Amino acid sequence: MTHDYGARFDALSQLMKGDSVDALLASVGADLPYLTGYEAMPLERLTMLVVVRGNPPVLLVPELEAPRVVQRPDTFELRPWGETEDPIAIVADLLDGVDSVVIGDQTWATFLLDLERLVPTAGFRIASPLTRELRMRKEGAELDALRRAAHGTDRVAARLQETQFSGLREVDLSRLVSELVVEEGHQVATFAIVASGPNGASPHHEAGKRIIGEGDAVVVDFGGRWDGYCSDTTRTFHVGEPTAEYRRIFAALEEAQTAAVEAVRPGVTAQDVDRTARNLIERAGYGQFFVHRTGHGIGLEAHEHPYIVEGNELVLEPGMTFSIEPGIYLPDRFGMRIEDIVAVTGDGVERLNRSDRSLAIVD
Amino acid sequence: MTHDYGARFDALSQLMKGDSVDALLASVGADLPYLTGYEAMPLERLTMLVVVRGNPPVLLVPELEAPRVVQRPDTFELRPWGETEDPIAIVADLLDGVDSVVIGDQTWATFLLDLERLVPTAGFRIASPLTRELRMRKEGAELDALRRAAHGTDRVAARLQETQFSGLREVDLSRLVSELVVEEGHQVATFAIVASGPNGASPHHEAGKRIIGEGDAVVVDFGGRWDGYCSDTTRTFHVGEPTAEYRRIFAALEEAQTAAVEAVRPGVTAQDVDRTARNLIERAGYGQFFVHRTGHGIGLEAHEHPYIVEGNELVLEPGMTFSIEPGIYLPDRFGMRIEDIVAVTGDGVERLNRSDRSLAIVD
Repeated sequence: MTHDYGARFDALSQLMKGDSVDALLASVGADLPYLTGYEAMPLERLTMLVVVRGNPPVLLVPELEAPRVVQRPDTFELRPWGETEDPIAIVADLLDGVDSVVIGDQTWATFLLDLERLVPTAGFRIASPLTRELRMRKEGAELDALRRAAHGTDRVAARLQETQFSGLREVDLSRLVSELVVEEGHQVATFAIVASGPNGASPHHEAGKRIIGEGDAVVVDFGGRWDGYCSDTTRTFHVGEPTAEYRRIFAALEEAQTAAVEAVRPGVTAQDVDRTARNLIERAGYGQFFVHRTGHGIGLEAHEHPYIVEGNELVLEPGMTFSIEPGIYLPDRFGMRIEDIVAVTGDGVERLNRSDRSLAIVD
Repeated sequence: MTHDYGARFDALSQLMKGDSVDALLASVGADLPYLTGYEAMPLERLTMLVVVRGNPPVLLVPELEAPRVVQRPDTFELRPWGETEDPIAIVADLLDGVDSVVIGDQTWATFLLDLERLVPTAGFRIASPLTRELRMRKEGAELDALRRAAHGTDRVAARLQETQFSGLREVDLSRLVSELVVEEGHQVATFAIVASGPNGASPHHEAGKRIIGEGDAVVVDFGGRWDGYCSDTTRTFHVGEPTAEYRRIFAALEEAQTAAVEAVRPGVTAQDVDRTARNLIERAGYGQFFVHRTGHGIGLEAHEHPYIVEGNELVLEPGMTFSIEPGIYLPDRFGMRIEDIVAVTGDGVERLNRSDRSLAIVD
């Protein structure tokens, strides 16, 4: 998939001018691929895009990575650096005379500290308050990619309903889920949480050797990348008949998830959506067991702006995409979570995930 | 595998005292698992170990990650933070009155910039000059883990010699390699570069849709994690008979790799080892096509200190582990690389990788 990188650099330039930002530095993270189509490996060898307002952007890459870069000479200049050069000194030269610099949020501290030392006159701030203005409202081609990715995970979820869970170790099921994510069209599976029985009470449980058995609730949270864009969905399964108590709590969760999705529309704030889910779960008596925010933005990164969390007064706009994923976790007993990716439309919401989200009874 | 984390904290404390460092902050990267057995997810929610000299270490984790932490109350205190708390403010409180702080190299810039703002009186430097003194000389159990991981990749390399390459796309072979890495005992495969024909001239080529065929040289560079420790090896294969020219250049590469391995012993510097490989490749007339350093340290991280590169005057000591991986890359034509992990012993070197490293002819 190619995008209009030239238009993105133009929009960046306007934003930098409006915010009186002289230079932007992008390294690991998604600002770089958003602007250039090239992603930095998270390595000790520096890759950095240097955008000084008024000058042509320069993409600094380790010499051995240079052949991997798809060059776009109309939008940026490629500058490979050799193994015995100091790339930070090259960046510092490019920043000569610059006052206000924003730097990608995930840039390694080692590079930032060196830059602060070599360019002591510059003020450094993080880039995301600026770059999220570029990236939060998805373009049509981006929405298409996110839709394809979400529908791919929907097909995986449907296949999991036909899978025998009982007797599998969590790690076995996790591996199967990753295989299905690729079979259903993703280029790569990036994670597959499988949390069974009491492990389900740990929202980010790492799949282990526990053997799934009758009576277990199993939280499966998985995703991958499709043309660079991420998927992320959670479904909860139950091996055999759940107890009346589990069904009752799950019904409260399902109601909260549905209400939060239906609360999404332009003009509503991110925290309003969080409150919608949280109030319903509190009313059901489980507020203290919903220990995380309701959701996170998604796009080139699995977690990005906007975050659907108390305190975030950001007003939702068409094109914003994020997860709605309330969960309830009873320590030492069980957990449950329902997660869909949604997009804000002109007048409401589109669920990108459409697979059955009710409690699936499996063998 | 468990380690003596208490002893590691004691050694850290001694080093901090010797270097007049008041506090260490460890987040993403391997300093944290080295000290606590717990690895931070690379997320926008902060995980950070705060070690203020003279106080008990505090491990700050997002509340929803807390159940994943194996607690070691004799070595650190666990401090979960809730979704609407500000974790940086908590770190700043812990740093009250502290002057000299070192922070993990890979810590995200967003956290460092917030800390610099909230604790303006503290001086921040990167942690690796200190923590590499802890981590560079591997303990016996660490060497065992690295050996097991290396031998696992050796078995994969042997199986690849029996594999038909011709007709496979690079991505297919890459997926197969990753599957074999897991089959042969790694918990996870982390990468599998497959660079065929002219793609071999790009050292970090991303496996693509190119179909491997007769006459191709194929560079396969792969590894995974085994009990937390990394493997990383490269073998070069040739589909059918290579040309006399390819054989001649490969012989020069093999000689350089062997000489560099044999140069490793206590008392030699890292750059001496690099020069040994580089001089031989230069003498053969291909110096300009060996575009990267000779190697990198390996342990909990795939790339760590010591780096085997010109300019690094670090003197090798027993227990240091690193790759020896010269390569020759002829643009638009072909590439070749041989990579083994080695350990410095009391009086010489141990090759952890022992699989056949000659040019393997495959179908």
